[in-house]
Amino acid sequence: MTEALSPPEFYELVHRRRDVRGQFTGREMGEESLERLLGAAHAAPSVGLSQPWDFIVIRDGATRAAFKEHVASERETFMAELAGERKELFAGIKIEGIEEASLGLVVTYDSSRGAPHVLGRHAIAEAGLYSVCLAIENLWLAATAEGLGVGWVSFYREDFLRQLLGIPAEVRPVAWLCLGPVTHLEPVPDLEARRWAERRPLADVVRRERW
Amino acid sequence: MTEALSPPEFYELVHRRRDVRGQFTGREMGEESLERLLGAAHAAPSVGLSQPWDFIVIRDGATRAAFKEHVASERETFMAELAGERKELFAGIKIEGIEEASLGLVVTYDSSRGAPHVLGRHAIAEAGLYSVCLAIENLWLAATAEGLGVGWVSFYREDFLRQLLGIPAEVRPVAWLCLGPVTHLEPVPDLEARRWAERRPLADVVRRERW
Repeated sequence: MTEALSPPEFYELVHRRRDVRGQFTGREMGEESLERLLGAAHAAPSVGLSQPWDFIVIRDGATRAAFKEHVASERETFMAELAGERKELFAGIKIEGIEEASLGLVVTYDSSRGAPHVLGRHAIAEAGLYSVCLAIENLWLAATAEGLGVGWVSFYREDFLRQLLGIPAEVRPVAWLCLGPVTHLEPVPDLEARRWAERRPLADVVRRERW
Repeated sequence: MTEALSPPEFYELVHRRRDVRGQFTGREMGEESLERLLGAAHAAPSVGLSQPWDFIVIRDGATRAAFKEHVASERETFMAELAGERKELFAGIKIEGIEEASLGLVVTYDSSRGAPHVLGRHAIAEAGLYSVCLAIENLWLAATAEGLGVGWVSFYREDFLRQLLGIPAEVRPVAWLCLGPVTHLEPVPDLEARRWAERRPLADVVRRERW
């Protein structure tokens, strides 16, 4: 029986968590540690207890190099939409640590899990997709608790990733996560430090009784 | 400076978390505690640091009664799809604690936040929706750490909820969460205890290198 954690410790963890790009060491990640992280993800809530996620652990260098190349081309696509100061700011922002991280973890959504009658999904088709994201956040916080880093890469086309990994057409890739030991976690989000965006005050997003 | 939590404490928390229906006490929830929970949600990762969420805190009895009535009618809609044993099992399952909980918390997604050029969203439109779910899981775990319960209700039509709360057409409701003090958290998910679904072994959802 482990001791329950206190709320202050949990809040410290939540605020320490970062989206990591440049701090991966590439050191080998043990299977035990990986299993604990995946276990935390797999314990997430899911609509109708459908657990509609799968996790593909990728260490292979060729797969990672191919994905990195694709991400670089999507970076160019996004860059082409920008102008002036935004373009300059973006040029200095690192968007992925695909090869520097110890491994890649692709998380997918399978809508057939628990179908046809998934309790809680008849009115909201995306509810299953939402469950997958809850699992990702569990894993992200678990990694942070273990002193590891996670970086979510979303500069990719789902069909490219499907083809690269042999994912069936009816299964949807939700994330490529870079995962592994880090030198440290930065105290401030990268996009804030680089002046791409600012965090908003909490009061701006809380409403009472109605919108 | 609070102490960092240890990984075992985090895993204990993750496995203790439950989707609560029947254990709410309805006791008043303090504003300080609510603010800590919302602060945890607001510290979640978001695509391009867009923080595209809003939180509507609902205590009003009339609003909750109207939502509960709508959910009851959606329950009937789902029930009508079922037959035989599934129908019998579902009949015994409680799907919401809207009026028993201390409050309702509606979480929404505003795709205009940070637009038009949200870093990391040009290739995957749903990436902003994913961010909102990460915030929800942060709040859910924070509530669990505080000894509170959360129950995600998804038996509703988004347009009904929009109209009920005056949410603009371009903003998407993602969840109605029931929130508040509970008598206890059940050791096993309700849907498993009621034999609606079973949790799968982790090994079933982990793949190596390819699908």
